[in-house]
Amino acid sequence: MTGLSGPIGVFDSGVGGLTVLRALRSVLPQDRFVYLGDTARLPYGTKSAASVVRYSLQCADALVARGIRCLVVACNTASASALDALRLRYPGIPVIGVIEPGAAAAVAATRSRHIAVIGTEGTIDGGAYQSAIQRLDAAVRVTAQACSLFVAVAEEGWVEGAIAESIARRYLDPIFSGGQRLSAADGVPDTLVLGCTHFPVLAAAVRAVLPDHVTLIDSAATVAAAVIRELPAANSCGPGHVTWLATDGAARFARVGGTFLGETLRPEDIEVIDL
Amino acid sequence: MTGLSGPIGVFDSGVGGLTVLRALRSVLPQDRFVYLGDTARLPYGTKSAASVVRYSLQCADALVARGIRCLVVACNTASASALDALRLRYPGIPVIGVIEPGAAAAVAATRSRHIAVIGTEGTIDGGAYQSAIQRLDAAVRVTAQACSLFVAVAEEGWVEGAIAESIARRYLDPIFSGGQRLSAADGVPDTLVLGCTHFPVLAAAVRAVLPDHVTLIDSAATVAAAVIRELPAANSCGPGHVTWLATDGAARFARVGGTFLGETLRPEDIEVIDL
Repeated sequence: MTGLSGPIGVFDSGVGGLTVLRALRSVLPQDRFVYLGDTARLPYGTKSAASVVRYSLQCADALVARGIRCLVVACNTASASALDALRLRYPGIPVIGVIEPGAAAAVAATRSRHIAVIGTEGTIDGGAYQSAIQRLDAAVRVTAQACSLFVAVAEEGWVEGAIAESIARRYLDPIFSGGQRLSAADGVPDTLVLGCTHFPVLAAAVRAVLPDHVTLIDSAATVAAAVIRELPAANSCGPGHVTWLATDGAARFARVGGTFLGETLRPEDIEVIDL
Repeated sequence: MTGLSGPIGVFDSGVGGLTVLRALRSVLPQDRFVYLGDTARLPYGTKSAASVVRYSLQCADALVARGIRCLVVACNTASASALDALRLRYPGIPVIGVIEPGAAAAVAATRSRHIAVIGTEGTIDGGAYQSAIQRLDAAVRVTAQACSLFVAVAEEGWVEGAIAESIARRYLDPIFSGGQRLSAADGVPDTLVLGCTHFPVLAAAVRAVLPDHVTLIDSAATVAAAVIRELPAANSCGPGHVTWLATDGAARFARVGGTFLGETLRPEDIEVIDL
């Protein structure tokens, strides 16, 4: 069912993964994509690992049935739990998660050997970024902070302005030394990983409250780069196309998803499927 | 399995219902309660009505097995979908939801015949408060506003201060005329229903941005009053006790639940059960 010419499949528990799709389209504008948001069962972050693996395999099955040539797991929870199971089920298809590319980019970027990671409570408590970074370089220090409100702020579309910046400041000032604009020489992190697919839309608000020396790692962009490396001959030469799938709520998917995709989505373009 | 002397059963999809439990305990301090948070399957708001009914019946079964004499549905989604099914299954047990008592209190309070209701997106889109108010008085105008961020802010425990008030202002100023402190004579609502069990902990922040003439209806308090009316001889004369049940995540339940309960919860006091 798969081949060199199929589309790239992308799934997430909801709309956050659209930031990954957006990054993929910006580097592969002529390619075809199938995006699946498992909106009927979101959030994955509060589910057991066994359930997340089962859901991920079902998502992958639906995408493979549409002939994908590459699978992007645009969900931190699924990336942390299900990559091995997905690779075992589909050995012929490259499976790319969001965690390793972000971790690798952060390790490459840091000079102070101190990286900060922000994500949902589930991602941070699960420690997947911390482990991935320390597998790459055990000497790197990692400071992790759950930023639960960022998801709700992003889904509400309040991605710029005073409220987003106040919330960012409250989460990040304690890590980056209370806004005193200390430098990396003072031991604060010099690299911040946006470890949730919702967070790239908040990058400007986060940037506004960070010391200037901090490098921001956008995990959506790093995943896109990883896909390009994995699929060197990936570029199609068509007009580019996305097939939209969701397991529930086309109207909400379209409305909230627009924020993450950066363009308007129409409910009638979204096919609701059962898994 | 039930009788006049059993505890009062309370269930919610998570910790929000603890505001209802807190209100119940404040009026029935000597009574016994069993609280069940179906944390493994939260949120109910994004599930189908059929699933919410099934989950609610399972929650009720678990509570009835513990001999409750009254069932309080401390969840807006379950109150909107499952009351009939619960009453059919347990005709001998009073079943009290959160919507009707809040709607009745609002209709009794309004002079301008214009009520505002805030809740989660699911509650507001489902229209349960709007319907309940208009069943009581079809001439009352209802302005409804989803305040999705309030849930995340409340669960983060950021219930007071500039961030909570900025968010409240952004949601409520458009309803209450841009902070110009218009009066009810200008056609703005004179009554605001906190139509989500998470919201009572944000009452101070909401109050701070409302015009003075607006009456705030706390649905947790109105449910407690409804329980007292339903169970006139309900008072036990014991020391008061709560049995804590959750379907997942005792640690998070205890940590986040403390905000809603207004006192410290210990993970070891919470029994995790399967439904």
